Amino acid sequence: MTPRTIALLSDLGTRDPFVGVMKGVIARLTPEAQVIDLTHEIPPGDVREAAFRLWQSVPYFPSETVFVVVVDPGVGTERRPVVIAWPEFTCVGPDNGVFTYLLAAAGPYSAYRLHAPIFQTPNMSSTFHGRDIFAPAAAHLVSGEEPEKLGPPAPDLVRFDLPRLELVEGPAVHGEILHEDRFGNLITTLGHLRIEEEDMLLEPWLPHCAPARLPRAGLRLLLPNGARLELKAAYADVAVGEALAYVGSDGLLEIGINQGRAADTLPLKPGQEVILGYQRRTTA
Amino acid sequence: MTPRTIALLSDLGTRDPFVGVMKGVIARLTPEAQVIDLTHEIPPGDVREAAFRLWQSVPYFPSETVFVVVVDPGVGTERRPVVIAWPEFTCVGPDNGVFTYLLAAAGPYSAYRLHAPIFQTPNMSSTFHGRDIFAPAAAHLVSGEEPEKLGPPAPDLVRFDLPRLELVEGPAVHGEILHEDRFGNLITTLGHLRIEEEDMLLEPWLPHCAPARLPRAGLRLLLPNGARLELKAAYADVAVGEALAYVGSDGLLEIGINQGRAADTLPLKPGQEVILGYQRRTTA
Amino acid sequence: MTPRTIALLSDLGTRDPFVGVMKGVIARLTPEAQVIDLTHEIPPGDVREAAFRLWQSVPYFPSETVFVVVVDPGVGTERRPVVIAWPEFTCVGPDNGVFTYLLAAAGPYSAYRLHAPIFQTPNMSSTFHGRDIFAPAAAHLVSGEEPEKLGPPAPDLVRFDLPRLELVEGPAVHGEILHEDRFGNLITTLGHLRIEEEDMLLEPWLPHCAPARLPRAGLRLLLPNGARLELKAAYADVAVGEALAYVGSDGLLEIGINQGRAADTLPLKPGQEVILGYQRRTTA
Repeated sequence: MTPRTIALLSDLGTRDPFVGVMKGVIARLTPEAQVIDLTHEIPPGDVREAAFRLWQSVPYFPSETVFVVVVDPGVGTERRPVVIAWPEFTCVGPDNGVFTYLLAAAGPYSAYRLHAPIFQTPNMSSTFHGRDIFAPAAAHLVSGEEPEKLGPPAPDLVRFDLPRLELVEGPAVHGEILHEDRFGNLITTLGHLRIEEEDMLLEPWLPHCAPARLPRAGLRLLLPNGARLELKAAYADVAVGEALAYVGSDGLLEIGINQGRAADTLPLKPGQEVILGYQRRTTA
Repeated sequence: MTPRTIALLSDLGTRDPFVGVMKGVIARLTPEAQVIDLTHEIPPGDVREAAFRLWQSVPYFPSETVFVVVVDPGVGTERRPVVIAWPEFTCVGPDNGVFTYLLAAAGPYSAYRLHAPIFQTPNMSSTFHGRDIFAPAAAHLVSGEEPEKLGPPAPDLVRFDLPRLELVEGPAVHGEILHEDRFGNLITTLGHLRIEEEDMLLEPWLPHCAPARLPRAGLRLLLPNGARLELKAAYADVAVGEALAYVGSDGLLEIGINQGRAADTLPLKPGQEVILGYQRRTTA
Repeated sequence: MTPRTIALLSDLGTRDPFVGVMKGVIARLTPEAQVIDLTHEIPPGDVREAAFRLWQSVPYFPSETVFVVVVDPGVGTERRPVVIAWPEFTCVGPDNGVFTYLLAAAGPYSAYRLHAPIFQTPNMSSTFHGRDIFAPAAAHLVSGEEPEKLGPPAPDLVRFDLPRLELVEGPAVHGEILHEDRFGNLITTLGHLRIEEEDMLLEPWLPHCAPARLPRAGLRLLLPNGARLELKAAYADVAVGEALAYVGSDGLLEIGINQGRAADTLPLKPGQEVILGYQRRTTA
């Protein structure tokens, strides 16, 4: 039988053996599971960044992968541990908003509260549910346990407000800067964007925005400071040190600097509005 | 056959391919072994922290796991490479104190000096025994080789002095701050602690301390500066920014700050005495 | 069937899920492949350091390992994605110099341009060929696909100029400082060096240098500032805080400080000339 995959996403870091211990717990229960790290360097407690990283990763994993999220500032409180099952994949983690993007964009799902004691480690802690609840639950799930056996239905899952992504008259798409990556590129909400001949197709990744077809000629990314970035295909399409906008590997528009770090150089930060359109920002 | 697990703990970092190369050596010898990283970010040469991280991790791993420790400031000197076998798990590494807590607390064991040349890589270095001795030895052990075949008995293993953990009249338990974790929480020696109805049970993790039963009413953690922390169940049981003491996921008392970093905020550091008791510190 | 190994080397870091996503892509195509991380902390775009880390690692991996390198500042430009096959191992990555040392030192090879669309992910990006081209290609290769099926021959691979390593009259070997490791040790080009009784054998790792046999008596490492370091076997052979030269685990001469960091303490940096010889530097 092909081994099933468990993918781990957390803010636990790699300095303590937290993640290694979760893998030990999984190996005890299902030695044949294949465990893959997404990242463990989510800023401590940053539920929004975790939700985005999870959304980024899911499409590339094998069918039936179980994703375990341990970004859990409310561990030990009343926040619910949950399992959420989609037809193609399953998620385990705290009900604190970390699944917001998937709940919004990944289609119908079933959610259950994790509470069956059989799926927990014997020495239950109040501070490390990654080890004591989420890892054992994931191990049971990849072994074939049905999600509904892990606890009662969990209605009304916690979600944060979705970021801005709005098609307006003009046309233009109003979005915002979402996150920064390792290379200092700034990822915006503007997407999914796909080039089709002379047009840019907007096939929104967030359900509250309408799709659109925008002619590429004259299309610019308008920044809060009035700058207008051309849309390019690759970093090297501008001079070294120059800024560009490009469709990143998630299909979202990103802001980068050829051989530089946009996040450290441009006066931009997450949450600020950016507009994909044709007008000067000042005349909008 | 179920693959056996090798767990790696080191100060080798993840910037150089040191750890990857150790995994390559293992994969050449036993491709079916499952290798799990505990951490590779032990501060260079910090034998005490390595010993604690290893002790923390062992209980959560599958039976017959081989733990490889490469925190080895004396590599190339006369310090012995050793294999130490307990009934449930086996350790491989330098005889420099990294196994101190397990030797003190994990029951009877057998120890052997690693010296059989067959278990070494052909181009033996004097600076990287992780690759040239410990990884090959671990690969042979998970393949079923008996520890006593790897070398002669190794008596008188190196140990450092155990940290403070003492039950005194009053009652009170005198301990010390041991290590800091990724979230800035301070782990103390005070434990294992377990709540049982109205009492806190002390079931010492270090063998030189007596067990005890302490009524929870009025029990406080007394800090060197005179502060007295209440024992809480979860971070969220105090206001944001406030300090608390709580039983951490290892069963040891920890000092944390709700949504903050105790290690960066409180005037405390590893080695300082902390007391679990009922009296003001100044009247002790 | 024994699972085949894929080894990953990149500058993608571990903060974003880039590497995790590459592993997801591999797991979808070849769930039985064993994936090992060499390092993902190559400084962004540093092709030379990546080339060295790859060269360091290859000898320790199982036969038929596929090495995937994603250090790719020119992603999205005309630089070619390539597969290079040696009899014992295969490499996949951008044709930008990252394979320079292996091309120089690892013997005959065949190189092909990766372009067969079947080996790519459906939503091809212009910024993340690690996910969209290199990971799928590696998955197909470990499944037994022949390299020549992945694209047409790729002649004239890109190489950077090899660093200095020269045997001169005297005798002496002129080399340079190449890279720094996690412990602050400075790795030089001087090697491979091997001790044989009273002599040091030079068996050059770079093909443009002649081999030699140098008597060990009086042999020193001459630094640019006039200092002369003795060659020692282990860090502990000098006092704490003192500098030494020693043959490192790659067979190259390294400069270290016992329990210290040479790179932060000595006035040395990569690219500077160092000489293994018998004369004062000032009289050379």
